[in-house]
Formats: sequence, structure tokens, C-alpha cells
Amino acid sequence: MSERNTQIRMKRHPAGMVTQDDFELVQSDLPALADGEALVRVKYLSLDPYMRPMMDPVRSYVEPLKPGQLMPGGTVGEVVDSRLDALPKGALVASMLGWQTHGVVNATNARLVDPELGAVSTALGVLGMTGVTAHYGLLELGKPEPGQTVVVTAASGAVGSVVGQIAKLKGCRVVGIAGGPQKCRYVVEELGFDACVDYQAPDFAQQLAAATPDYVDVLFENVGGPVLDAVLQRIADHARIVLCGNISQYNATEPYGLKGMRQLLMHRVTVHAFVIADHRDYWPAAQAELSKWLREGKLKYREDVSEGLPNAPQAFIRMLSGGNFGKQLVKVS
Amino acid sequence: MSERNTQIRMKRHPAGMVTQDDFELVQSDLPALADGEALVRVKYLSLDPYMRPMMDPVRSYVEPLKPGQLMPGGTVGEVVDSRLDALPKGALVASMLGWQTHGVVNATNARLVDPELGAVSTALGVLGMTGVTAHYGLLELGKPEPGQTVVVTAASGAVGSVVGQIAKLKGCRVVGIAGGPQKCRYVVEELGFDACVDYQAPDFAQQLAAATPDYVDVLFENVGGPVLDAVLQRIADHARIVLCGNISQYNATEPYGLKGMRQLLMHRVTVHAFVIADHRDYWPAAQAELSKWLREGKLKYREDVSEGLPNAPQAFIRMLSGGNFGKQLVKVS
Repeated sequence: MSERNTQIRMKRHPAGMVTQDDFELVQSDLPALADGEALVRVKYLSLDPYMRPMMDPVRSYVEPLKPGQLMPGGTVGEVVDSRLDALPKGALVASMLGWQTHGVVNATNARLVDPELGAVSTALGVLGMTGVTAHYGLLELGKPEPGQTVVVTAASGAVGSVVGQIAKLKGCRVVGIAGGPQKCRYVVEELGFDACVDYQAPDFAQQLAAATPDYVDVLFENVGGPVLDAVLQRIADHARIVLCGNISQYNATEPYGLKGMRQLLMHRVTVHAFVIADHRDYWPAAQAELSKWLREGKLKYREDVSEGLPNAPQAFIRMLSGGNFGKQLVKVS
Repeated sequence: MSERNTQIRMKRHPAGMVTQDDFELVQSDLPALADGEALVRVKYLSLDPYMRPMMDPVRSYVEPLKPGQLMPGGTVGEVVDSRLDALPKGALVASMLGWQTHGVVNATNARLVDPELGAVSTALGVLGMTGVTAHYGLLELGKPEPGQTVVVTAASGAVGSVVGQIAKLKGCRVVGIAGGPQKCRYVVEELGFDACVDYQAPDFAQQLAAATPDYVDVLFENVGGPVLDAVLQRIADHARIVLCGNISQYNATEPYGLKGMRQLLMHRVTVHAFVIADHRDYWPAAQAELSKWLREGKLKYREDVSEGLPNAPQAFIRMLSGGNFGKQLVKVS
């Protein structure tokens, strides 16, 4: 093969807002295969908010990245060379190859993707990490009951859009929070939420109060910061907050000071923070249910596809400020 | 009877720090008894931090107090007149008569106190609301395992002192946080905690880090504010935070902005806020176990007794700024 591997690595730890200068593009020869390995040419790379805190040199749920390391990330791609019977040439596989055009997988760190279940890119979205995150967080931690009010932040995003649609399937009143009228329209008209409130509106708090007359039983929280404080003012007794993301704070040099802690106590709220990587056993059943809903037309999704690996840093920076509209992907090949 | 009833009522909603002018003392005739009622002369009134947020006119877990209403509170006293066979004259009863010298109880809102179990005042402390709060919060929500690190704020207080002693009985490493060297010495030398850190010390954060080398698996939180932020920097993966009180913030006009929300997500923490009044079924078994430990000498407690109902406001104000040392009581008669 005359192909070469292209990687995007973290050049340095970002100082607050991540910039293109925090990344570097590196080319190298394709890796050689050992027995039991397969070479994958990446088709899609998933860009996700969790990557940003990994770039900070602080104690976290994973080892923080060091300068010079490959940016991590979920990928789906095609096997182009194989010394592993389970993953023959031509097979589609999902794995965590990171921000690169090619990578090596083995039987334990890759799963076959069935193209009958949906477009191959859904293995990174509604049928992949973000879909399973939504399923687990809402149903196992939020435990919404029919008729209860579920609020979802980043409602048009990869996780939030699935959360809200599942909550509707479970008979809840679902209120989204999103940035701007276009996303809000999509959330209500396409995804079927009962309401969506624009957090950029000057009367956001009043709109949120009007949309939650019976207060908020489940908050699925992806954003943090002042949006979280606003929802805390509407929290119901015995509410559950599912803490899945904190995207408003990932680039902050000074963290937002959350003022509504009193509300947690006054309303006997439970807060469940989680990352789906802790719950590997949960994936197969959730993926089966999600793909059933997808086939039945009950789950809609939207993708925001950036073309070419070199554009990944720019797409990542845009996503962190809410500039994407739907699941952020990079089409690598 | 020639006795009269004395009450302390909330005169007005406090503006920030509660003052003596927010209360008024009112005298009235003793109430007449109907069939099925008993008249109680209060011996001890319990003063507890939860009373402060009830004085604010905001949505909470109970109806906020209105100006002119009797201050609420747990009491223990003696039946001095009875038209109820189950509570004969001379019986000792615990109930919620509030800040007054006399009150009327019936079969459903009072429980007999067995003086064999401990001093009568313990019905308001280690064998009463604060003891059951500690037992439920630590064991049902915190779920500490032997060898894990439990941190307790307001460690010398009515709830914190019981939490830490139970955690020691369960084989945990227990670190208290308290205000000043005298309280810290008591927590370690008398209550048997492994360590106690003075939050007033200039190097508090460093001392806390040194006392929690394996991070914090369970935080039993009574204080909030910057102390909570400091512990969040030491939180362990999959930690449980039991949110029982927020005393540092009850008098605040501007709530403290909590900066450590990111820690909850990074370490997949669960936060359980609760009030023990929601869990009435839990009381009998917890009280039985607490009185067994008390008889066996495994539970120590300390009381801070203020003399006379008219001194209740002053004692309450002092308690809210941490001036008490042990369970705050008022000896009413």
C-alpha cells in the first residue's frame, strides 16, 4: 500500500479556549500488522465534548493527554488489511482509533457494525456512544415516570435529541433547552418535544418557568453554568438530575459559581453524574432497543459532517461553542 | 392551673443575617383540652439549622413561615394534664411543639419517651431527629464500605458527631471538618475520628489533602460554601455526597457560587439531598440501634444548653454562626 497515516495530536494543553494552535498534524507510515490484528481505514470520526476536559492536565476519569499524544475519539471504518479472521477485509468496525486516518484494532477493542441497522455513521451517534449515553442516563438514572416533566439541555445535540425522544416514548412532558430559534424549532417540530426554550433569549428564565408549570422532575444536563442555575430554580421535589456534560465550562479559565445548591437540599434532589464508559455491559441491550426504534421511525437524528481530518480541530472548536447543529462528525475517507 | 403559655414567634422575615428583632415573645392563656388531647409542659426545645430557611419566603420543603407564626421545633416535655389514656399525666413525650413553654398533643403527633434509654434530652439529639438523620444519611445514602474515607463537615455538631462515630463503627477512615482547634481536638480525642481539619486554618486545603491521601469516598455535608468546594477537590471516583445541610449559606443574602461542579462529572459522583421528615418509617429501627450503641458506650454526645425560652433567639443566632459546641438545646422548664 502506498497510503500513509495522518494523525492529529494535541500539541500543548489549551489555556482556556482551545485553539487550532493547540493541535498538530503528523504523517507517518502505516503500522505493520501482527497476528490477531486488522488495519482500519477510518470513514467517520466522532467529535464529542468529553474530549476537551481530557486536554487539561488535571485529575479526571481518564489519564489526561500529554503534549504530543494522539487526540482520542470514536471512529467507524473499513478493514483494509487483516490478520484476524473475525474482522476480514471489507468489514465495517467501530472502535476508538482517535483523530487519525488509519489504525490497528484487535478482537477486543473493535466491534463489527451491521450496515443493515442504519447508515454507518449512526454507529457513532444514535446507535453508538451518544445514543447509549442518552438511553442509560435517562432510563437508569433519571427514571422518568409517565406524565412527569423532563428537561433536556443541549436538546438538539447528539445526546439531548435522543434523550428527549426516548422521554416522549415513555409518556413524559419534554422541554428542551437549545441555543437559537432554528435549533428550538427543530427540537419541537422535528423531534417532537412539547416545548423548547432558547437560552440566548433575554427572558429565558421566564420562558422556562412558563414551559414547566409543574416544575422539573428530571433534568438531563449537558451544559452546566447559568443554564443549570436557571433550571434549579424550577426543580421539583425529589427530582433527579442526570449530570452527563458540562460543555459551557470546558473552555472556562474561571469556573462558573453555581448559586442554586440550596435548591438541591430544599427539594431533596438526587444528582447522578456518570460516563457511559463505566457501563460497558449496558451497551448491547440499549443498542438493540435504539436500533428497533430507529427502524420503526421513532428516533430521528441529525448529523453535522465536517469534511476531511485536517478540519477536525476547527469543527471541534465550533462544537464547543454550540456552532454545530446535530451530531458532530468528521468524514475522514 | 395558673400557668400561662409563652411563645416565640417570627415577627418578620429576616433580611440576610437573622437578628433578635426578627422574633417576638407573646404570652397567652393555656389552651383548653379536647378529648384525645394532652397538655405538655416543655422541658427542652431543640434548635436546628433547618429552621432558618423556613423563615425565608421562598418555595421549600415546607410552607415558609409567615410573620406572626410560632417558630417551629422539636420538643420534649411532661404531660401536665390529659384527656388521652395513652399519654397520662407525668408521661414524657417528644413532639414538635415549637418555641413555646406549653402545647397540646394527641396520639398521632407525639411519641412516648422512655427515660431508661438515656437522658430525656437525648430524645431531641442522639436518639431523636439529629441521630436518625445521621443514621439514615450515612448508611442508606452514603453507603460507606470498610476502609473507605468518610469526611464529615460540622463534625462536632449534633448530626456530624453521630455520623462520624457510626462511620468508625463501620470500619471507615473518618475525617472531620470543624471550626477551631477546641472542636477539632474534641472530634479526635473524644469522638474517636481519625483526623479533624480546622476550616478556619489558613492552610485548610493543604491539611485536608494531607488527611485524605486516598481521596474522599463519602462526604456527609452539613455546611456548603467554600468548605464544600474544598472537599470537592479531594473527591474520589464514584463518591457519594450526602447533602444534609447548608448552614454556611442560610443567612447569606448572596449565595456562594460553587465552583467544583466539574468534579462531580469527572469523578461520577452521586449527590443525595434529603430531609429525615420524608422517612418516618425509618425512625424506629434507627432509634433502636442508636440506643443500643448509646447503652454500650459506643456513642458519645455533647449538648450546648441555653437556659430559658427567652434566650432561644440568641442561642439560635449563635448556632448559625458556629458558636455552639454540641447539640443546641434550650432548657425551657
